[in-house]
Amino acid sequence: MDASPLMWVVPISGVIAVLVAAYFAWDVLRSDTGTPEMQKVAGAIYTAAVAFIKRQYRTIALLAVGGMVVIGLVIYFFESAPGVSASELAIKTSIAFIVGAACSMASGIIGMFVAVKSNLRTAAAAQHSVADALRISLRGGAVSGILVVGLSLIGVFVMFIAYGGFQHPEQAPFTIVGFGFGASFVALFAQLGGGIYTKAADLGADLVGKVEAGIPEDDPRNAAVIADLVGDNVGDCAGRGADLFESTAAENIGAMILGVAIYAVTQNIAWIVFPLVVRGFGLIASVIGIFTVRGSDTKSPMSSLNLGYYITVALSIGGMWLVTNQMLNEKGAGYWFFFAGVVGILTSLAFVYITQYYTAGNWRPVQEIAQAAKTGPATTIISGVAVGFETTAASAITISIALFLSHYFGEQWGNATGLPHGGIYGTAVATMGMLMTAAFILAEDTFGPITDNAGGVASMARASLETRERTDRLDAVGNTTKALTKGYAVGSAALAAFLLFSAYLDKVTDLRKTAGITPADFHVVDLAKVDVFLGGFLGAMLVYLFSSLAIRAVGRAGAAIIEEVRTQFREHPGIMAGTEEPDYARVVDITTASALRNMIAPGLLAIGAPILVGVLLKAEAEAALLMVGTMAGVILATVLNNSGGAWDNAKKFIEAGELKDDKGNVLGKGTPAHAAAVVGDTVGDPFKDTAGPSLHVLIKLLATITLVLAPLFV
Amino acid sequence: MDASPLMWVVPISGVIAVLVAAYFAWDVLRSDTGTPEMQKVAGAIYTAAVAFIKRQYRTIALLAVGGMVVIGLVIYFFESAPGVSASELAIKTSIAFIVGAACSMASGIIGMFVAVKSNLRTAAAAQHSVADALRISLRGGAVSGILVVGLSLIGVFVMFIAYGGFQHPEQAPFTIVGFGFGASFVALFAQLGGGIYTKAADLGADLVGKVEAGIPEDDPRNAAVIADLVGDNVGDCAGRGADLFESTAAENIGAMILGVAIYAVTQNIAWIVFPLVVRGFGLIASVIGIFTVRGSDTKSPMSSLNLGYYITVALSIGGMWLVTNQMLNEKGAGYWFFFAGVVGILTSLAFVYITQYYTAGNWRPVQEIAQAAKTGPATTIISGVAVGFETTAASAITISIALFLSHYFGEQWGNATGLPHGGIYGTAVATMGMLMTAAFILAEDTFGPITDNAGGVASMARASLETRERTDRLDAVGNTTKALTKGYAVGSAALAAFLLFSAYLDKVTDLRKTAGITPADFHVVDLAKVDVFLGGFLGAMLVYLFSSLAIRAVGRAGAAIIEEVRTQFREHPGIMAGTEEPDYARVVDITTASALRNMIAPGLLAIGAPILVGVLLKAEAEAALLMVGTMAGVILATVLNNSGGAWDNAKKFIEAGELKDDKGNVLGKGTPAHAAAVVGDTVGDPFKDTAGPSLHVLIKLLATITLVLAPLFV
Repeated sequence: MDASPLMWVVPISGVIAVLVAAYFAWDVLRSDTGTPEMQKVAGAIYTAAVAFIKRQYRTIALLAVGGMVVIGLVIYFFESAPGVSASELAIKTSIAFIVGAACSMASGIIGMFVAVKSNLRTAAAAQHSVADALRISLRGGAVSGILVVGLSLIGVFVMFIAYGGFQHPEQAPFTIVGFGFGASFVALFAQLGGGIYTKAADLGADLVGKVEAGIPEDDPRNAAVIADLVGDNVGDCAGRGADLFESTAAENIGAMILGVAIYAVTQNIAWIVFPLVVRGFGLIASVIGIFTVRGSDTKSPMSSLNLGYYITVALSIGGMWLVTNQMLNEKGAGYWFFFAGVVGILTSLAFVYITQYYTAGNWRPVQEIAQAAKTGPATTIISGVAVGFETTAASAITISIALFLSHYFGEQWGNATGLPHGGIYGTAVATMGMLMTAAFILAEDTFGPITDNAGGVASMARASLETRERTDRLDAVGNTTKALTKGYAVGSAALAAFLLFSAYLDKVTDLRKTAGITPADFHVVDLAKVDVFLGGFLGAMLVYLFSSLAIRAVGRAGAAIIEEVRTQFREHPGIMAGTEEPDYARVVDITTASALRNMIAPGLLAIGAPILVGVLLKAEAEAALLMVGTMAGVILATVLNNSGGAWDNAKKFIEAGELKDDKGNVLGKGTPAHAAAVVGDTVGDPFKDTAGPSLHVLIKLLATITLVLAPLFV
Repeated sequence: MDASPLMWVVPISGVIAVLVAAYFAWDVLRSDTGTPEMQKVAGAIYTAAVAFIKRQYRTIALLAVGGMVVIGLVIYFFESAPGVSASELAIKTSIAFIVGAACSMASGIIGMFVAVKSNLRTAAAAQHSVADALRISLRGGAVSGILVVGLSLIGVFVMFIAYGGFQHPEQAPFTIVGFGFGASFVALFAQLGGGIYTKAADLGADLVGKVEAGIPEDDPRNAAVIADLVGDNVGDCAGRGADLFESTAAENIGAMILGVAIYAVTQNIAWIVFPLVVRGFGLIASVIGIFTVRGSDTKSPMSSLNLGYYITVALSIGGMWLVTNQMLNEKGAGYWFFFAGVVGILTSLAFVYITQYYTAGNWRPVQEIAQAAKTGPATTIISGVAVGFETTAASAITISIALFLSHYFGEQWGNATGLPHGGIYGTAVATMGMLMTAAFILAEDTFGPITDNAGGVASMARASLETRERTDRLDAVGNTTKALTKGYAVGSAALAAFLLFSAYLDKVTDLRKTAGITPADFHVVDLAKVDVFLGGFLGAMLVYLFSSLAIRAVGRAGAAIIEEVRTQFREHPGIMAGTEEPDYARVVDITTASALRNMIAPGLLAIGAPILVGVLLKAEAEAALLMVGTMAGVILATVLNNSGGAWDNAKKFIEAGELKDDKGNVLGKGTPAHAAAVVGDTVGDPFKDTAGPSLHVLIKLLATITLVLAPLFV
């Protein structure tokens, strides 16, 4: 081996990540914990969230152990590789799977733990200052963001070394794909379970509380209110954490597999470890970016966050320059990959702007929905669906340009150096560029539910109006950052899709060579063949069926909650009068049980369908399922996320008093227009917080499942 | 030439079609025209519908002439074929285009003319008998159904002969693709304009009438009520007629192009004219089926229609046996194609059942939506979306099995005979099998708006309660048949998709051979190439953007109508009191103008986007756009059609008093559950009657546009 000293960035940035996360956690935990009332509410949230996570992760752990055994058996009986025994291969892949699953679970648990501790402290800080509340909530979120990205980086690096990456660099990336699959596997159930929990509780709380009983949001008389607050943590924090953990892991491993092809020609290991090094720089850039965010009591919190993000982007570009210049600079043509990397970094910026345009109240789309609310819920829904459909255009065109350019730059490098595989490597560099800022984005994302919860804590603890106003200001920003993260996650999934397909094709080629199948080369996915076409068609269908199951699961779990809250109101009239406390724990229990029961069907579909199609129609049809399923999934997720976000903010637009009738009168809360907007928001909830985010995971899972189980389809 | 005598079936069935259509038209027109009040209402509908169609078709004619010129120029400068001058080729294609456009316009106009005449006579007949009313409305619909299919058959046949099909059978099918493109071009704008008109009027009439003013449906005091009734004719009759005209034409021509490949080996012209002959038999089977439908005053009208359909299916299977046995019986192995044809015929039956299951009140999906209506509009929408997403599974799996089996049977024929291209020809035979019953299905479909209008006429003419009840019974059946037709149209589009792709690949190969490009053979569409992947991704996005524009167009046109009706109510208080007649004509004018203005943007997108992608990314990426766009379009159309149909029938389920609360009380009209179901129905309207049907046309248009403009992309 003859790798660049830059490789040391990987372990160093990993250690920095752990240290900084520990510092942030310590900083948050030492902060003021507010009034006894606040502590009581936060305690209830904490207890319920931990109870859910325990039960959920116990279920997931069981499923993961089952998955590990199945994978081991499949590999043992179907896969072979030169110089490795079948049992060694099976054991290595199984271990990689379970380690990936465990890391993913760990990052979900730690992130949620700190988030649940941060909400109380944010509420307490909001009693006197927005700036302090912003600092605590962002640092609470940053623990999760930094650890998720850091753990995934360290995990892949350690697996790579443990599986002899420096002795057999051309084999190791293939054996660690199990790590990515394990992470996806856990993320799938974490996101489904958490997503169903959060929106079922939200739906139940709103429909019985706001609509039937006519009490405000987060009112302590509502038995579902604690479950609702818990939901933000288990869905948005734990779920999204697991989602981005597996994204970064899977895309990293995919990029390393592509590097093998160039390593085979250059014998330079830099091509394989480059993705790790770039991510190390990205992690450091993100940490610095987070440190630069200083809240202010006068400036908008969003502009503080944006400044931090710009700094992260700028540092990432610098890091990308350094790494491409040092590691990929074959014949002095490394700058082509620098361009490709910059394309990726700028794509993440583009998604931030596209998402804002379509889901924030300052622009045409949300205002159009708010106008439609004047003529009732039907036109509100129609208008929101039209906006959601429309958003696919900007997103798909951005992705297309990014893929095209990064591939083009990679090809130019190929022309300059005479080396092969430049084009596809260019798309991998762009993907890694896009993922450089992941830790910052994820910190912003987790900041969202923390401030949301802080508002809930303040409200239930009957804190002062000023406190509530401060948390509301932060919460509004949190809504935007949550929407941005989803746009970013879908965008990176789309950009990464192509690189993961190519990794799958490489893997199948590899398997065919070993098995002596001719022609071994498998780099064509020909849609003009009937079975391949059908694979694609079924892939496109799969994302809809999966979303249907996820959405129906929310409806079912929500119905169970509604039933329970109604019963409590009926049997204990003291609750409504405010003389009796509702039984929050029972609603939490019911939600937990229902979310866990209902996550199984969509989860098994996501895993079973690609296996079935692959076994029946074989490798090429499976590739089409993966590709068309990814296209359809990216587009449907975009529709679901953005229509949901736009409805949410159309409601907020009206609540802020910005909608006026013909005569200039404000149509605010309590008007039929507001009621119509609430319907839109409620419809959007399972779209944007259950089905959409679960689709991200499905897309990645398709990629890792095909990689790991490829021996079944050859 | 040495074709089978069966070929005479084509002109004979064409003549039969014209004669039977004329007889039905005469039979309808001689029927009783009811009371003077009815005649007045029907007269207003007639005048307004004719006015719209005139203006719409004038616009479309202008656009078509522009299209003809552009196509002529493109062909002249970019295409060349052996033994034909560039100008001859350009002129031939341009003429084919304009003839196709003219035939499509003619069938739309005739169908709508008879439909508008039939509604009055159906209402009149309903004064004494359901059976008579059923006979008149079905025969009125049959004029349209038979003529559309017959005209498309005759049109393709005449063009084939005129362009030397019997002298150069291997060239003629390629030159008549312009006919299919012309038909698609007209269908696109006919369906968009009609679809926007009908749903904007419906939305406007409902929102101001039912919701704001609290007056019943079809109340003469509502200024938008005539526009609403006109909408059924221009959207459902004229639009769907144009849609199925181009479907049958395009799929026919595509199948003939595939036949060229086998003709090249066997020198037997039967392979090229087979699709025409099979459709001739299908047309005759449909006519007989329609004749067998005898209404009864005691039996359900649906069972009479179903019996007629089963007869049509049985006769079609017989016809398929005869034709495959006579024409495709190379080495006695023709039975394999008979099997493929039966697969197609049974697929049409399967779609009838799937659609019924998902959109009729007797089964789980609609009942689930009705239950969700108990908790308000939000859960109604969520539940309907989940059902719509779920329907994609049964549809996609049916299509997959049909494609797989028909391809497999075709391959077996290939194995038995040693001849090439059997597999793909098998899918073409299945498609032609599915289309055999098109005339019957279309007659049932047009029957829907006729009975709907008859109900409106009876209601506005204040006919007796029994009359209204009779038309209501027929209308309920009409709703089901309309939904079935959409399922059938999408299903046949999906089944035909693969054959149309293959025709495109054949055409590009042909062009490359002529241009001397090597390798000329173009039968691989490799998704693993970046530009091809991007073509597919943009195709998937296109169907969403197009639907977004179509849905927004309905919203815009609807808003203009609402404004006008409100103004009339405000400025003329006599309208509400019943002492003054509203100005129906003004609303009709506004709707007409708005529908025509708003059909342009989605129409140009549908035509412009595939051209742009093809020119920029070239033939293979264009093929991916076509294929993935078709998959995504079929699936999205299924979602839109079925969720819309399910919401509609969930509302009807509640109106029929079949929803009960926990204590067994009926939750019928006037309850919050009913109001929630009305919201669902209103949301579903532009889904199922504007965007969904327009997507069918878009899918076919993608196929014909790529075929005709292929020279631009080579």
